[in-house]
Amino acid sequence: MSVYLERREKLYDYMARESIALVMFEDAENRRNPAIRWMTGHPGDAQLFLSVDKQAMLVPWDINMAALFAEVEVVVPYAEFERRPLMAIRGAAEYFKTPFGSRMEIPPETPYPRFLQYVEALTDFDVICRNGGIHGEVEELRAIKDAEEIRIYRNVAAITNDIIDLLEEHIRSGALKTEGDVALFIEAESRNRGCEGTGFETLAAGPDRSFGIHPFPAYTAGEFATKGLSILDFGLKYAGYTTDVTLTFVRGPLSRRQERLLALTERAYRIALAMVENGMTTRTISAAVDVFFSNSKKMMPHGLGHGIGLEAHEAPALRNRADNTAVLKPGMVFTLEPGLYDPVHGGCRLENDILLTESGMEVLTNARIIRL
Amino acid sequence: MSVYLERREKLYDYMARESIALVMFEDAENRRNPAIRWMTGHPGDAQLFLSVDKQAMLVPWDINMAALFAEVEVVVPYAEFERRPLMAIRGAAEYFKTPFGSRMEIPPETPYPRFLQYVEALTDFDVICRNGGIHGEVEELRAIKDAEEIRIYRNVAAITNDIIDLLEEHIRSGALKTEGDVALFIEAESRNRGCEGTGFETLAAGPDRSFGIHPFPAYTAGEFATKGLSILDFGLKYAGYTTDVTLTFVRGPLSRRQERLLALTERAYRIALAMVENGMTTRTISAAVDVFFSNSKKMMPHGLGHGIGLEAHEAPALRNRADNTAVLKPGMVFTLEPGLYDPVHGGCRLENDILLTESGMEVLTNARIIRL
Repeated sequence: MSVYLERREKLYDYMARESIALVMFEDAENRRNPAIRWMTGHPGDAQLFLSVDKQAMLVPWDINMAALFAEVEVVVPYAEFERRPLMAIRGAAEYFKTPFGSRMEIPPETPYPRFLQYVEALTDFDVICRNGGIHGEVEELRAIKDAEEIRIYRNVAAITNDIIDLLEEHIRSGALKTEGDVALFIEAESRNRGCEGTGFETLAAGPDRSFGIHPFPAYTAGEFATKGLSILDFGLKYAGYTTDVTLTFVRGPLSRRQERLLALTERAYRIALAMVENGMTTRTISAAVDVFFSNSKKMMPHGLGHGIGLEAHEAPALRNRADNTAVLKPGMVFTLEPGLYDPVHGGCRLENDILLTESGMEVLTNARIIRL
Repeated sequence: MSVYLERREKLYDYMARESIALVMFEDAENRRNPAIRWMTGHPGDAQLFLSVDKQAMLVPWDINMAALFAEVEVVVPYAEFERRPLMAIRGAAEYFKTPFGSRMEIPPETPYPRFLQYVEALTDFDVICRNGGIHGEVEELRAIKDAEEIRIYRNVAAITNDIIDLLEEHIRSGALKTEGDVALFIEAESRNRGCEGTGFETLAAGPDRSFGIHPFPAYTAGEFATKGLSILDFGLKYAGYTTDVTLTFVRGPLSRRQERLLALTERAYRIALAMVENGMTTRTISAAVDVFFSNSKKMMPHGLGHGIGLEAHEAPALRNRADNTAVLKPGMVFTLEPGLYDPVHGGCRLENDILLTESGMEVLTNARIIRL
């Protein structure tokens, strides 16, 4: 059985348990959702309908693309529904002969005005739109990587580590001088090694811009890794899955405050890493880092980390917020990325990707603070 | 008066007319909205609250960034609201002393489950979430570019045209060989010329991949512009505003079907261009192109064009759909991009950016079908 069919089977079980006859997933501009790729292999704009009688209908924008990538029982071009989601969901219900009165679940990202349109257009059905539900079930399933996904992660992490070493070499030698040099080197080298590209826009910030958590613009023609603290945050995407690492490049002489930012960040990273284990709540780890920083009169203006996979940010969240109840489990792949940012002295961040297995923790990537 | 304040003034007038006391805008991961940049200059993750008494509060994720970019009366770090949108909106209402019972408008992109949370948390207010409304007003205002925006567009179009010429030169000479060469050349050259980067991921597809409307992956290490039809779709972003052009590179000898795809696409482009004028409904132009293709037994699997600006896709839409009532007006900047795609013979698309002024139409960019 294909991995996609296997994944869909789990969802049919869920639908049967919850008495849901039809489910819609959507991957659209401004509402990206790689769940459809996870369930069918199709990587582009589409809607996916699952019927509780174990059939899936893909409604792609580009049917040529679907013919190449999608493993699914039925494909209907979006154009046949005049490229309107309301017509597509009614078409799917008709095709699957979904019984009147039955439950239909639509994505929790559905905007409220569009939700009203669905309800109006689907009066014969019970339309459900909620956090959790089957879409939450998919997120939870996706958070636990299967054997194939872990194989992909070891592969893309190895490529990432090769490129980290090359970056260190070429920045030391002066071959890569600007933020743009560094970012485009990563783009080119990743594709030369079979990656789909980068998992998100590379953030490269020289010393005068590294105070930004996410520098703007992401990278420029300006100098990188000159005197002070420079941040490089990037990820490589392979077979859909992205890594996410951050290196800080340091060129002295540094001020005492800069040395302190580095020392605190490295120590926070080690504290977090030492707390990672199966069964640990992620809020506990995040809170420990926040307390550590706060005891040093510092504040980290972002969360400690996040799951990675087909998205650069997915479950589990690692943050110190009351509503975060995530627990670390075998199969999870996530980042730890403590950082501190000072508008005058610059910023530093250290981020690596961690895999949890039954036998414990594995640091997949080799990002580091590099002193030039 | 700063251009940002001027733009906000128009919205305060709207709020007064519609008796809306407080409005929220949001620019967040998965719900990007450059309206905040348009109104304040702040280009990153944030919420923006406008109070009908003509004050604006920005709640940015990164306060260092806001200090550099935002022109706004009040800045409160998102961290002060525990990075929770519900707490931020309540905080804004408290700060502005928004009277109980008054109307508060939230973005129409608000997911239904979150809408319910807002309503529950804001029982003292009348929460409005609708298509159109003030968020639609901003989209309509943004569709008509002001003098400053038109100046930016002439500038970024000139840079785009320079790079188009360089691309032709370096592809002819063989200096740029692969999809990656072409895409990374654009990234580097755009930044060398002061652009923020590209407006969206460059799509470069050699002859074996050009059948895809949006090839996947966007570009690879594979060859570009070898025998057949290759598509290059890119845009440059300058001061926030993006161009969007598509070139088709052609290397013969071609089959008769390939020649026909090219001829039909070029002719469709000329038909569309000849119909552009102030007051024209965009659906009429789009329908004319669809009819032209259909008379030739072809079908274009996407819309004819779209507005461009701070987003690569914004108002007006140019598509042949009953719900499209957009009308061309002076100040609009939009694309025309007819294309045809054949899984065997490859695809072609021709896309340029058009500016409408009181005195007529101006084709800003110089994309073309290039025969090598």
